[in-house]
Amino acid sequence: MRLYTIEVSGKELAALELCDGKLYPVTDLGFPYNTMLELIRCGKEEDLAKLRDLAASEAVPGELEGKGFDKAAVVICSPIPEPDQDIVCLGLNYNEHILETTHVEDFREKEATVYFAKRAARISGPSDIIPAYSFVDTLDYEVELAVILGRTIKNYSKEEGDGCIFGYAVFNDVSARTLQFRHKQWYVGKSLDGYSVMGPCIVTADEIGDPQDLAIKCYVNDELRQSSNTKYMIQPVLDAIEEFSQGITMKAGTIIATGTPGGVAVGMENPKYLQSGDTVRCEIEKIGAICNRVG
Amino acid sequence: MRLYTIEVSGKELAALELCDGKLYPVTDLGFPYNTMLELIRCGKEEDLAKLRDLAASEAVPGELEGKGFDKAAVVICSPIPEPDQDIVCLGLNYNEHILETTHVEDFREKEATVYFAKRAARISGPSDIIPAYSFVDTLDYEVELAVILGRTIKNYSKEEGDGCIFGYAVFNDVSARTLQFRHKQWYVGKSLDGYSVMGPCIVTADEIGDPQDLAIKCYVNDELRQSSNTKYMIQPVLDAIEEFSQGITMKAGTIIATGTPGGVAVGMENPKYLQSGDTVRCEIEKIGAICNRVG
Repeated sequence: MRLYTIEVSGKELAALELCDGKLYPVTDLGFPYNTMLELIRCGKEEDLAKLRDLAASEAVPGELEGKGFDKAAVVICSPIPEPDQDIVCLGLNYNEHILETTHVEDFREKEATVYFAKRAARISGPSDIIPAYSFVDTLDYEVELAVILGRTIKNYSKEEGDGCIFGYAVFNDVSARTLQFRHKQWYVGKSLDGYSVMGPCIVTADEIGDPQDLAIKCYVNDELRQSSNTKYMIQPVLDAIEEFSQGITMKAGTIIATGTPGGVAVGMENPKYLQSGDTVRCEIEKIGAICNRVG
Repeated sequence: MRLYTIEVSGKELAALELCDGKLYPVTDLGFPYNTMLELIRCGKEEDLAKLRDLAASEAVPGELEGKGFDKAAVVICSPIPEPDQDIVCLGLNYNEHILETTHVEDFREKEATVYFAKRAARISGPSDIIPAYSFVDTLDYEVELAVILGRTIKNYSKEEGDGCIFGYAVFNDVSARTLQFRHKQWYVGKSLDGYSVMGPCIVTADEIGDPQDLAIKCYVNDELRQSSNTKYMIQPVLDAIEEFSQGITMKAGTIIATGTPGGVAVGMENPKYLQSGDTVRCEIEKIGAICNRVG
């Protein structure tokens, strides 16, 4: 099923897409979960099953007539607008991206996966503006597959399968390259307001199947900049969850951004950094697209 | 005033220390703030002023007789047991510490402050056990001054003064050195459960005065390992807040760990890493001490 967060009367509500393409607040469907984080953390298995059935149904039940919101007529937020805890990110998780960035830092011989954090007081939604800061002239895009955990785990073993994963979304790990490298640790350059973009929705794990076989692309103003497949991840999703969770509690609702393929601006001989007015479109097979203009 | 978090009947409550040295839950004092984060985020200025007056009073009001908890008879938690968002940390913020770690990474020529994140599903309290993990044989201590923000800020200017700071606490930035350096970015090696220790309380900013003139020390089993003064910070507290908040919203309740002075194990020719049974005591002038045994 496809779960959105939409703004209705000033509240950000979890909403389910039904077969008519409209978005229905989960509370209007009769379930006591206002926000996506409530649904992820408190959603009973039987309620989730009922939601899945509703989403799969080929007709919208009569009593819901008129209750859905047109996507074009409602504000679609990031599926998780205000994460608690930072976003866990993988760096250099596609070989092409390692090769294109050796001039900045050489990770060809790295012995382990690179994990870093990205702070976001708010995560931007699928059509929000990416802010242009006067002190940033090296603004870059990174399309990534985001994984959202469905339960709290620690010392996870990948042999347990994908039962800990709630779903997936498209993520743009927007980065200010000068800041990222000047401060040595990447935290500042990754954490400016508006630099985390996620959407358009969370597609639940059952609907995605294998997360390691999805086409992943990024366009800037219709020019294809990144085009790869999640099968080229060096550290696949479940291996990353297993590794990071050794000794570390990962709460339900945790967002993991799994790294970007080659094709970012910093990897170019003449970097085509994002400029005001540019539009970045990130898309992943089976999930959809987010499309954000630089302000 | 000195604000603690104590466990009472299974709840973690903000509590004020009065002149008798006992801890009084803020709710029992007649204020509607259960937790420290509620007090920080929702505490009205007049309520905070009344709490300050109570703390400064030389007698405990008669109606409070018998309502205080002896420190020795109650579980004292970290002042903020469950932070939302990760802890913002400064790295290499004392010159001695830069000099002692050049063999690992050479930061003598760094052009900017190093900021990184430390994840903590829970922050340990002043006498909790530091867990010993079978896969960590390079366990290290780092005494640091923690700063807790009192209001949400962005693009802060240090000219505005310390009005954004709620208070200060002692912090131990426990680190697994092998993990920290193997993953290049330090996030994993800093974020194991139990590696963030804070306490014994938050001392409000008005009571500390200048945060850049506090003796800061760390003992391991009564051996003095770190001994410095916060005046030696390269990037002082307000400068760090100004720099990090450029373009980045920092919420009320944000915890900033401001870096450790020289004397950590990794800086020694023959590193004396922490072993099971060791006791680490971190103390800062005007605040107090946290004392944790390695499990």
